[in-house]
Amino acid sequence: MPKRIYNFSAGPAVLPEQVLRQAAIDIVNFQNKGIGLVELSHRSKEFMAVAEECETLIRELLGVPAGYKVLFLQGGASSQFFMIPMNLLKKNQIATYLNTGTWSKKAIKEAKLFGQIEVPYSSEDLNFTRVPRDDEYTVNPASEYLYFVSNNTIFGTQFQKMPATDVMLVSDMSSDIFSRPVDVSRFGIIYAGAQKNMGPAGVTVVIIREDLLERVDETIPTMLKYKTHAKDDSMFNTPPCFAIYCVGQVMHWLKALGGVEAMEARNRKKANLLYEAIDNSGGFYRGHAEKESRSCMNVTFTLPTKDLETSFVREATEQGFDGLKGHRSVGGCRASIYNAFPLEGVERLVDFMAAFAKKHQ
Amino acid sequence: MPKRIYNFSAGPAVLPEQVLRQAAIDIVNFQNKGIGLVELSHRSKEFMAVAEECETLIRELLGVPAGYKVLFLQGGASSQFFMIPMNLLKKNQIATYLNTGTWSKKAIKEAKLFGQIEVPYSSEDLNFTRVPRDDEYTVNPASEYLYFVSNNTIFGTQFQKMPATDVMLVSDMSSDIFSRPVDVSRFGIIYAGAQKNMGPAGVTVVIIREDLLERVDETIPTMLKYKTHAKDDSMFNTPPCFAIYCVGQVMHWLKALGGVEAMEARNRKKANLLYEAIDNSGGFYRGHAEKESRSCMNVTFTLPTKDLETSFVREATEQGFDGLKGHRSVGGCRASIYNAFPLEGVERLVDFMAAFAKKHQ
Repeated sequence: MPKRIYNFSAGPAVLPEQVLRQAAIDIVNFQNKGIGLVELSHRSKEFMAVAEECETLIRELLGVPAGYKVLFLQGGASSQFFMIPMNLLKKNQIATYLNTGTWSKKAIKEAKLFGQIEVPYSSEDLNFTRVPRDDEYTVNPASEYLYFVSNNTIFGTQFQKMPATDVMLVSDMSSDIFSRPVDVSRFGIIYAGAQKNMGPAGVTVVIIREDLLERVDETIPTMLKYKTHAKDDSMFNTPPCFAIYCVGQVMHWLKALGGVEAMEARNRKKANLLYEAIDNSGGFYRGHAEKESRSCMNVTFTLPTKDLETSFVREATEQGFDGLKGHRSVGGCRASIYNAFPLEGVERLVDFMAAFAKKHQ
Repeated sequence: MPKRIYNFSAGPAVLPEQVLRQAAIDIVNFQNKGIGLVELSHRSKEFMAVAEECETLIRELLGVPAGYKVLFLQGGASSQFFMIPMNLLKKNQIATYLNTGTWSKKAIKEAKLFGQIEVPYSSEDLNFTRVPRDDEYTVNPASEYLYFVSNNTIFGTQFQKMPATDVMLVSDMSSDIFSRPVDVSRFGIIYAGAQKNMGPAGVTVVIIREDLLERVDETIPTMLKYKTHAKDDSMFNTPPCFAIYCVGQVMHWLKALGGVEAMEARNRKKANLLYEAIDNSGGFYRGHAEKESRSCMNVTFTLPTKDLETSFVREATEQGFDGLKGHRSVGGCRASIYNAFPLEGVERLVDFMAAFAKKHQ
């Protein structure tokens, strides 16, 4: 078997190898019961235990307080763009959105179908190179919630601290959930697609304050009400069992490594290495994000010319670094270094970057 | 490793062992590339090839004509209950539904949120022991479509042939897709959750006639329009990659076995064995479904007393037959014998049934 490549993909992304190896066993013969994991009825005691354990670990690792439900939904983060306003807003009600990238922009578009959306901050004219400081916008106190994307995968920006406001927070944490501690009690909803920091594509974790469940208009379809899924512990219909199982395995791995505090230190170390390599390159590599907004998860940078960027990605790929091409909205390169990405891979990339710069400077 | 048990679960259900074994390899090291299947970007050429091959095989095996899209969606069959009327109906438009079980009833409930729903046939007062003959109902010719569930998993009934009407057909084939040939050209939409006859839970295959894509009201959320997913070949957002991969592997397996015609013969043989065991038991076992409506996928039956049913399920479980307890709406027992369920398992169950009846008669 070949050595594992260094997978810098933005998502679906690298997962802990031990999780994949355990999944490979369980998928054929779950707990030595003579039945594969994905063949188990979702209502079997075996799978119910898998889902319960996954939820328990999520609650423990993220410090989810009582009074919150943890849901396993389908449809990706993109389905939350409409489900949140559909469940929380009425036509004449206000919600505030911060526009810091592609995903917030899409969320704003969907939210406008349901309520009065105010956008007091946008970095779109800067090609989303930054997220705002608290003093750069005002939240209308009549807002039902303040919506923001905690980490912008495409542009490589991240809120270093959560917005300071008395308005209830709602956040898309798809690309940085479990990468650092978070005070869940300040949020009405936290959600994240699994395929960056939690597992394979196919499940979206939604953490929702229970009092919000009753806000929903009774005339919306059953499957689109958070209440439906909360009432049946995400078993109203068949859940995406395999993805839930994998998230549970990733939670085990995360817990064994010391939880989100330890992960934050590890992530900061990895990101610092890369940003130092960029900043100390004499301008050969240039970070896309402003320094105060830099993401620990997605490091975006450009090279002096498009040709050099093409060569960089090609040579990197040849050396076993995969997924470094930047998103078309930014160009250049992007190194996604989620929780499961190993420090060693960042060290190797930094060496490669130095050698490449030396050759082409 | 223990022998594989005989898994009669109604879904998630038994899958071909070779599919599970291949998945166990690919999940750690896909095509020997040093990266796991679920770690691949959905836009990588490797995963795009997986999704394309899956679609090609679905088209080939089911004979999907030109002018139809094959979509890979999330949210289960339950999300189709509302997506179909949301995309196809306006408030004043009519659709006809046949009420033959739990799933059609749920679909009717959601459809009523969107249009004028007529239900000219219901077997609810018979506890859904049958599906209708063509002469037992009339379809309002003003209907946009006739909706029916081709196989009723819970009650063990199945349409032996598709309804004869000039109105466009729409069908939930979750529990019998790929179990027999079907003339797709008569349908506007065929859909099926994967977790019975196609793969693991987490993906819903939707086959939709292309001219229907434009019917949708522009004001509904982006993710809820079939058009959105059709335009981007189910890659508008991250699709459930693992489930799609598994469906593709199941399609390979099905093709190697001779396709849906061969599968139909195999399924009929398995079902006949079980129904004969029931009919020849001198009344010890009684089928729930009327003979003309009997399903080849889910065989439902009762025993003389509840106590005997409990003993039957317990003793069967001890002997390696899993998942035989009937749904609470029917009681008794249910043997789900989808495509991947082996003939040998049915033969063994029939022997067990005879021995059990002899002991307790």
